[in-house]
Amino acid sequence: MNVVLFAAGAALWPEYEAPLRRAFAEAGVAADLVTEADPARVSAIIYAPGSPLQDFTPFTRCGLVQNLWAGVERIVGNPTLTQPLCRMVDPGLTEGMVEYVTGHVLRHHLGMDRHILRAPGWDQIIPPLARERRVTVLGLGELGLACARALQALNFDVAGWSRSAKTGLPFPADHGEEGLQRVLARSDILVTLLPRTAETENLLDAQRLDWLPRGAVIINPGRGALIDDAALLAALDRGQIGHATLDVFRVEPLPDDHPFRRHPRVTVTPHIAADTRASSASRVVAENLRRLQRGEPLLHRVDLARGY
Amino acid sequence: MNVVLFAAGAALWPEYEAPLRRAFAEAGVAADLVTEADPARVSAIIYAPGSPLQDFTPFTRCGLVQNLWAGVERIVGNPTLTQPLCRMVDPGLTEGMVEYVTGHVLRHHLGMDRHILRAPGWDQIIPPLARERRVTVLGLGELGLACARALQALNFDVAGWSRSAKTGLPFPADHGEEGLQRVLARSDILVTLLPRTAETENLLDAQRLDWLPRGAVIINPGRGALIDDAALLAALDRGQIGHATLDVFRVEPLPDDHPFRRHPRVTVTPHIAADTRASSASRVVAENLRRLQRGEPLLHRVDLARGY
Ligand SMILES: NC(=O)c1ccc[n+]([C@@H]2O[C@H](COP(=O)([O-])OP(=O)(O)OC[C@H]3O[C@@H](n4cnc5c(N)ncnc54)[C@H](OP(=O)(O)O)[C@@H]3O)[C@@H](O)[C@H]2O)c1
Ligand SMILES: NC(=O)c1ccc[n+]([C@@H]2O[C@H](COP(=O)([O-])OP(=O)(O)OC[C@H]3O[C@@H](n4cnc5c(N)ncnc54)[C@H](OP(=O)(O)O)[C@@H]3O)[C@@H](O)[C@H]2O)c1
Repeated sequence: MNVVLFAAGAALWPEYEAPLRRAFAEAGVAADLVTEADPARVSAIIYAPGSPLQDFTPFTRCGLVQNLWAGVERIVGNPTLTQPLCRMVDPGLTEGMVEYVTGHVLRHHLGMDRHILRAPGWDQIIPPLARERRVTVLGLGELGLACARALQALNFDVAGWSRSAKTGLPFPADHGEEGLQRVLARSDILVTLLPRTAETENLLDAQRLDWLPRGAVIINPGRGALIDDAALLAALDRGQIGHATLDVFRVEPLPDDHPFRRHPRVTVTPHIAADTRASSASRVVAENLRRLQRGEPLLHRVDLARGY
Repeated sequence: MNVVLFAAGAALWPEYEAPLRRAFAEAGVAADLVTEADPARVSAIIYAPGSPLQDFTPFTRCGLVQNLWAGVERIVGNPTLTQPLCRMVDPGLTEGMVEYVTGHVLRHHLGMDRHILRAPGWDQIIPPLARERRVTVLGLGELGLACARALQALNFDVAGWSRSAKTGLPFPADHGEEGLQRVLARSDILVTLLPRTAETENLLDAQRLDWLPRGAVIINPGRGALIDDAALLAALDRGQIGHATLDVFRVEPLPDDHPFRRHPRVTVTPHIAADTRASSASRVVAENLRRLQRGEPLLHRVDLARGY
């Protein structure tokens, strides 16, 4: 019997135990799901950032470390990790992200805040139509692509950007440094859905923030480190950036005294854009265990060198 | 030459003159577009509520009164009106309404307001997925149907309701008084896109507001008179209604001292949900003039008895 170690933290165990057992049964995966085990007997590890498990050396027969989160920046650099690492691609998580992104893009597009903040009077400011609003998505992976498609379905004038060149997409997609300048220059609203890696850290620095049209809006549900905080605050102060809606931060929870908390043109959401849903995520875990047992290629394998 | 009288008010003339002339030329409609004319020589009238023209009796050879607005409640009861009345169905207006409705549904679904209003701390309240959120659209005409389809495309659990029974829709649709009770009972979020008529006035009264699940949200971009204001305020006060986002009111502009202005669970938008766009609306006017000249059936003819 395969020993599967749940090492995603005691807090998640009550939420995940039943869905995992159900998903294993449905997928025909015979596994002994435990929260403690002799490392040498473990064939797969279910993992989450913040887990007490940090040394992967003793897990000599482990063929899969399955992260429950989409982001892997807190495990990918672990020097003891030699086992295959897979990240979470969960339909529930993708749906949640699409809802967050389309919702906040529409919020900024429509100029909702002035009404929510109770503007007095009867100033009938009619927004342009979505087809006249240029929205750019940085990162065209599982999440960025789903968001870009949903925004296009809502008629927004969408473009995307990623590391590698992409063809066959229903909207223009660019790549590389020059491509970044081109897509930023056409962004009324910018959505950042990149992973945190050495290459993406501070991607949006003072210079690149200036490549955006004046007054552009940034929505960042990717990772806090994608943006240079000080440069963003300066760009907000001088009106180069019109508003920033941020879900992710270098330090989480975001400290109460962080300048983002009181800046009138920053909206803070507490890392809620998209949550892994235990039931759908458990089916993804089960499918990868099934593949491991049959020797089939694992899904959503992380490239440790690339960092995502 | 056909005399077409622009009687939609002097304020709109500068916005509409060029688009109308362009649309007439493109549609091959020969028309003398004027703002004043001998009534007996006028073959068609372009109209808007609030026009000084209130007596249609002298327009004995007029074959079309084309309203520039979707709502016709301020002309349909005019006893001097015997000419065919057509309302505006404008793709630009429909797109605007879909954006307003999807935006505000997502806003309430995601619980955005607490973040826009700067909730302190790090309370990670994760909303359910859209597929778990029941949204009902009252009115399945041009606008309601487009909104219901867009909400369904965003995964919301959509139902609709209209006067007549409808078949072949991609979501459940109900009708009639009993149907109203059924759809209200399943509405986490209710969108009202009905015209104002004798039958729809105060449709949402105290009793029917109670048919909604406790805490339901109402979004009304239809007409103010659809809802009994006092009953709505009472239902908000006792928590039966969680929030109301209102774009339309019995008196517009909404007076500064109206209780909606200061109620913490009411959002007022100043009748901006959807605006007729001069360019696309002018093409609709031109098409109806073309039909009039050829003796073809007019588009979007209003049933004066039914009131919409
Ligand atoms: N806020 C939340 O609740 C939440 C929830 C889940 C995930 N996230 C964040 O969202 C991120 C994206 O998730 P995902 O599932 O879409 O990841 P993914 O499928 O791995 O896609 C990553 C995308 O980023 C692009 N990329 C990576 N490095 C780049 C670089 N240096 N320059 C340009 N493009 C680069 C990739 O380009 P290629 O296509 O060329 O490889 C790919 O398109 C996660 O890493 C996580 O940080 C946030
Ligand atoms: N806030 C804004 O900016 C804005 C802009 C434009 C329009 N509007 C409002 O939106 C309204 C709807 O526009 P539309 O173009 O969608 O109108 P429409 O095409 O005429 O559709 C009206 C819908 O309401 C239904 N209905 C009418 N009376 C009813 C009753 N007594 N009981 C149940 N259903 C009833 C109709 O049912 P059947 O299908 O059975 O006929 C139809 O589905 C307009 O009348 C206007 O008041 C607001």
